[in-house]
Amino acid sequence: MKKVIIVGAGFGGLNLAKSLENENFNVTLIDKTNHHLFQPLLYQVATAGLSPADIAMPVRSLFRNSTNISVIMDEAIAIDKQNNKVILTNSQLDFDYLVIATGSKHSYFGNEKWSEIAPGLKTLNDALTIREKIIKSLELAEKEVDAVIREKYLTFVIIGGGPTGVEMAGAIAEIAKKTMIKDYKNFSPYDTKVFLIEAANRLLISFDEKLSKQAEEDLKKLGVKVFLNTKVIDIKEGEVITNNQTFKANSIIWAAGNQVSGLTSGLDVEKDRLGRVIVNFDCSINNHPNIFVIGDAANFKDEKGNPLPGVAQVAIQQGKFVAEIIKNNTPFENRPKFVYRDRGTMATIGKAKAVAEIKGIKLSGFFAWLLWSVIHVFFLIGFRNRIRVMIEWIYYYFTNNHGTRLIVKE
Amino acid sequence: MKKVIIVGAGFGGLNLAKSLENENFNVTLIDKTNHHLFQPLLYQVATAGLSPADIAMPVRSLFRNSTNISVIMDEAIAIDKQNNKVILTNSQLDFDYLVIATGSKHSYFGNEKWSEIAPGLKTLNDALTIREKIIKSLELAEKEVDAVIREKYLTFVIIGGGPTGVEMAGAIAEIAKKTMIKDYKNFSPYDTKVFLIEAANRLLISFDEKLSKQAEEDLKKLGVKVFLNTKVIDIKEGEVITNNQTFKANSIIWAAGNQVSGLTSGLDVEKDRLGRVIVNFDCSINNHPNIFVIGDAANFKDEKGNPLPGVAQVAIQQGKFVAEIIKNNTPFENRPKFVYRDRGTMATIGKAKAVAEIKGIKLSGFFAWLLWSVIHVFFLIGFRNRIRVMIEWIYYYFTNNHGTRLIVKE
Repeated sequence: MKKVIIVGAGFGGLNLAKSLENENFNVTLIDKTNHHLFQPLLYQVATAGLSPADIAMPVRSLFRNSTNISVIMDEAIAIDKQNNKVILTNSQLDFDYLVIATGSKHSYFGNEKWSEIAPGLKTLNDALTIREKIIKSLELAEKEVDAVIREKYLTFVIIGGGPTGVEMAGAIAEIAKKTMIKDYKNFSPYDTKVFLIEAANRLLISFDEKLSKQAEEDLKKLGVKVFLNTKVIDIKEGEVITNNQTFKANSIIWAAGNQVSGLTSGLDVEKDRLGRVIVNFDCSINNHPNIFVIGDAANFKDEKGNPLPGVAQVAIQQGKFVAEIIKNNTPFENRPKFVYRDRGTMATIGKAKAVAEIKGIKLSGFFAWLLWSVIHVFFLIGFRNRIRVMIEWIYYYFTNNHGTRLIVKE
Repeated sequence: MKKVIIVGAGFGGLNLAKSLENENFNVTLIDKTNHHLFQPLLYQVATAGLSPADIAMPVRSLFRNSTNISVIMDEAIAIDKQNNKVILTNSQLDFDYLVIATGSKHSYFGNEKWSEIAPGLKTLNDALTIREKIIKSLELAEKEVDAVIREKYLTFVIIGGGPTGVEMAGAIAEIAKKTMIKDYKNFSPYDTKVFLIEAANRLLISFDEKLSKQAEEDLKKLGVKVFLNTKVIDIKEGEVITNNQTFKANSIIWAAGNQVSGLTSGLDVEKDRLGRVIVNFDCSINNHPNIFVIGDAANFKDEKGNPLPGVAQVAIQQGKFVAEIIKNNTPFENRPKFVYRDRGTMATIGKAKAVAEIKGIKLSGFFAWLLWSVIHVFFLIGFRNRIRVMIEWIYYYFTNNHGTRLIVKE
């Protein structure tokens, strides 16, 4: 049996492995963590709406009944392209086919020291770090007597106006200005400030301009102050310095940039500025038709020569596409070209508000939010997770109470 | 208005504060964490059955609607008895009445270095540490080729045969021998070992002897090996050395001893061997009728001169009792004596099995487990938490699937 190694159990790797289930291949799926994470809802863990277990599933359980797929929790350290080997922490594995689906992590554009002060949102651990930072700030504000220090505790700065930044800003504004605020007795919603900073001249740059405008207005209604054309120059403890002004805040959240994570950096192939591997028409890398890179780790150029966006849909479709090539052992010269079908983009802005763009149709408001909710529950993996998330959302919809406001770390 | 300070939002402190809600007192409730923890179900978080948010509630939310209770997340560092002050990290507070309800932490009988290797179970963070240790051991076993090392990964040692130890052993045996095991392909239930070590000559020493026997048998049926009369002499990385033999295991869990946590140690009053404050008939301390110690932090002697057990019921009843004294400003000489009403004790042993002793009536098996489940859901605070826990239990009952098998920490 031919050996397939998949590195990464995100949307790309998982869908690829699922497509190879019970086929005549010996598949090994390797991930650093033990779970598949439903990243689109990660911001709700960070803002105390959901628990980690609601949006994550042990990878192993998903392949419990397959006879040909082994799941290994380990880190792929390096790839030996010439000898078709993946080097893990304490061992190495041979492959006939290798698929790298390691995704991306946040990029601080060379200012790695900012990461300590302004955490980004990629893993469950990140989400819990941010959640605890937000809740702790409110706790500190409640007992602070110095008005200047209290203001700092009650100011939340989100850097980056893409979908993650917009969703975070909306959710934090709801917490700080509407829901959790009722629990605190020494400050009012007027005392809390939520700032969203974006370097470009509009939010959600990948969306239609009308929807950007709508999102901005929805955020304003929630009490978020949006700063466009504002570039971050430096971040210090409790301070964000931009080209326009300095923001003083205890909670600073980074939602600004992505870069490819470790494994591909050692891979001797052509890469773009963000470290993404430039792949062939079939997602394979140059001169190695048995090695593929998919999802956020890849730079796949569309007809106009632009890289496909780093979204779940691209990774899922590429995963399924590469699975077909592997299943049929299609020789390089006979392989089809990967074609991305854009199923649309969407983002929520707080409760019962969202913007969506689906095949040219632009939606906003309550209906867009309902659509967003249904689609996200539908794509969530695991029956129990769907039930849990739905219950949490329904409960929250009617009570405005967040369920997971815990500070757990010591 | 007279000022009441309560340190600790466990069962004792919380019930005390609830009893003083909307009374003519200025109450400050201080806790190191931001949540009240339903400790009796903590072992289910440690064994991947429940999420932290299922069994913890932000203290602040519980007093959202009270006008006279402030909640502060802070640590009480010291008490100035003479001047009626509590010293916090950065401030101090005056009181007319002080109630210390700080509970207990695990005791390693002077061997604090054991704590790194054999974590105990008191906080949510402890539970997550244990959960990750268990799951990681199974993951490591799955990819280990050396049989001796793999055996170590597949051996789980629980030290202490009280209710926590028995419940942990039962739950781990279910994971390692019945439920999660289906996810792993390189070892079988016969390869996993769960050892429960107890220094005394029977488990559940506070229960009737017949129930101890029953619990031991139920555990054996689940595949737990029980070692009685076995005293721990030393714990090293991967090794528990006892008077009888040495156990080699990657996962070692401490459920053996409790001691009182920090605050009372600086209090100049009579204490017992475990650091518990010896209190008067009314739970106050000698010469300070306005200072009370309740729950696990107190040594309240019953008629026979034995200290009351460190269980939730004692703390709850003492909390309510002291609230009455405070509400009525009862002078010391007129105060009633606290009388503990034993409502019974119970412990579960895996799914659908439990032992219970209620007012002399001894129960075991399925019916005891049902009773255990109903009582635990009933006493859990928060409507949503009850729903969530019930759903998880029902789901688990029918599917044998654990819902929260995540490794989150980095």
